[in-house]
Amino acid sequence: MSAPAPSASTASLSYEQAGVNYDLIDPLKVAAQRAAAATAGHLAGHGFTEVPASRGESAYVVDVGPFYLASIVECLGSKALVADEMKALTGRSYYDGIAQDTIAMAVNDLITVGATPLVVQAYWAAGGSDWFGDAQRAQALVAGWKAACDRCGVAWGGGETPALAGIVESGRIDLAASCTGIINPKSRLSVGDQLGAGDAIVLLASSGIHANGLSLARKLTERLPQGYLTEVAPGLSYGEALLAPTVLYSPVTEALARAGVTVHYSANITGHGWRKLLRHPAELTYRIHTVPAVPPVLRFIQQHAGHDDREAYSTLNMGAGFALFVPREQAEQTVAIARAEGVEAVLAGQVEAGAKQLLIEPLGIRFASDDLQLR
Amino acid sequence: MSAPAPSASTASLSYEQAGVNYDLIDPLKVAAQRAAAATAGHLAGHGFTEVPASRGESAYVVDVGPFYLASIVECLGSKALVADEMKALTGRSYYDGIAQDTIAMAVNDLITVGATPLVVQAYWAAGGSDWFGDAQRAQALVAGWKAACDRCGVAWGGGETPALAGIVESGRIDLAASCTGIINPKSRLSVGDQLGAGDAIVLLASSGIHANGLSLARKLTERLPQGYLTEVAPGLSYGEALLAPTVLYSPVTEALARAGVTVHYSANITGHGWRKLLRHPAELTYRIHTVPAVPPVLRFIQQHAGHDDREAYSTLNMGAGFALFVPREQAEQTVAIARAEGVEAVLAGQVEAGAKQLLIEPLGIRFASDDLQLR
Repeated sequence: MSAPAPSASTASLSYEQAGVNYDLIDPLKVAAQRAAAATAGHLAGHGFTEVPASRGESAYVVDVGPFYLASIVECLGSKALVADEMKALTGRSYYDGIAQDTIAMAVNDLITVGATPLVVQAYWAAGGSDWFGDAQRAQALVAGWKAACDRCGVAWGGGETPALAGIVESGRIDLAASCTGIINPKSRLSVGDQLGAGDAIVLLASSGIHANGLSLARKLTERLPQGYLTEVAPGLSYGEALLAPTVLYSPVTEALARAGVTVHYSANITGHGWRKLLRHPAELTYRIHTVPAVPPVLRFIQQHAGHDDREAYSTLNMGAGFALFVPREQAEQTVAIARAEGVEAVLAGQVEAGAKQLLIEPLGIRFASDDLQLR
Repeated sequence: MSAPAPSASTASLSYEQAGVNYDLIDPLKVAAQRAAAATAGHLAGHGFTEVPASRGESAYVVDVGPFYLASIVECLGSKALVADEMKALTGRSYYDGIAQDTIAMAVNDLITVGATPLVVQAYWAAGGSDWFGDAQRAQALVAGWKAACDRCGVAWGGGETPALAGIVESGRIDLAASCTGIINPKSRLSVGDQLGAGDAIVLLASSGIHANGLSLARKLTERLPQGYLTEVAPGLSYGEALLAPTVLYSPVTEALARAGVTVHYSANITGHGWRKLLRHPAELTYRIHTVPAVPPVLRFIQQHAGHDDREAYSTLNMGAGFALFVPREQAEQTVAIARAEGVEAVLAGQVEAGAKQLLIEPLGIRFASDDLQLR
């Protein structure tokens, strides 16, 4: 990657400068999406059909008769690099949290369509056999993976632990998870056809940066005299704060289903920050009247990257890790159920008829339809 | 990786010298398998159960009531490195075949338990955004991925295309596929409880090395004066021959199911070569009376690596990519159905009562139970 180093520590640091060039990736993505869509007809040969609306969603859904089947594969991204740096600085292994992050990337996407996650598969591709020779780290990865499965009530089916010298860099690991679930009863399917004016927007709290925006966060250490050991709050280093594991939201969505709450739509707030609230293609206005508390590490990144609120909310989760769109009369119940599951939640706003836009009123921010290009 | 270079070109080249040290990976694998097995109880919370016998098999199976659900994630391994070298030498992109290889790794494992593959997800983790900027290569990857989905009758659900600079090496890509399928009717489940004395062993032909043994095959180029351009047969370079795409076997297993052939057990012959025929834990003798033709590239590797038949058959597929264990009276029909699907097949032997061992009689080779440690 040839991202130029910022010339001065006061310059604003963009996501592109941090090393991700979507102009190069997007043509492939579009070609792949078209080719993928053209394969849907194969399901008819088995007596099944896809749920076409799921094509643009976070997980792919197939109607297999008695219920829907949902599946996904998701990558952790570059967060493990922070764990590696912090291990060198502190001697601790953070791979228990990294394991949770990886599972969260898959599970939190899978549940957006209304699925109950059933099986997780592990994909741990190391830069060489010797990666697995660090017993402390390997055990942390295994223990954290199991704990996250326990928290989500999923079975860990198995997985792959290849040693990929020459593809994965020496001393590094490429972590991903695949997840399969079912939508049962079928009425739990939430791909947005029920979404409409009058729905309430409930935001579930994040624990920090989760696993998106790490390229930017890592790049930022070049501006910090103490790097990852710089304090973001008294006694809390930047590195420790970045490594707070991603919240697993499936216990909340499962509890909502048990309680009879109807989720009309949901969005996992990952890359693209709050613009993910505009995920559904419908022409609707999302009006936010209450924003959740911003975790110290995200405020710290915003300040040191020189981002205004608009740029920060367009890139980072800023305290909201998951959005639920529910009937207005079930909004308070939704908040209460989330809290009972140990996840802070806020009734943040409502869906209204009108142009497709997100209005974050307390901050005077407006994101319009063309601020998010996902499909 | 610290594999020593061979001191002379006549020395035998072992798999460990080629850079894979299972002694480092295996303790993690065992710990992960134990932790994974301990999560099975979570399925009861959803009203389901795992199929315990699938824990040691190539795909994980859950009983979801009307049918079984099978899922898997599989890595391509290092075969893409050969495509990269050959691109530099010939100007051609081989990523259409590489895509097929990647899907084959997942599909050919999934079908061993009797599953019909339904959905494939793509995992394409590049060393940087610029990987995707090579349009010829990117289009070959997309086209090959779709063609393999078409051949297997699976829907391409979506996937991930992360740019992982700092984790995946610059200019490289880490390719994997996840696959979800169902076993329907449930009588198609083949985890080995029907396997027994009297069953016939039908071997389906491979196209070459497939995607296992590539570390050894790549290492071998150091001994070849013309490297990948060395001819293994008139007009066929070593590199071209290595890149023959892995055969997709699901059209055969689906055709067998339609024809009413009962598959008692099956094995995808990947790493560990023919020792995979010993995969099932039962005490049974597998007697081979006919071996399939050996693809020129595998004979070439055997000769140049200085391997005797025993070592070659213990590492490479030697012409047999997939093994089907079927009732004796359906053996000829099995061979005919495979051929009708364009896959060469041979009635190779039978299962007998006796000590757990594989006897390859035409070659005078015996593999015993302790030659394969998978569980």
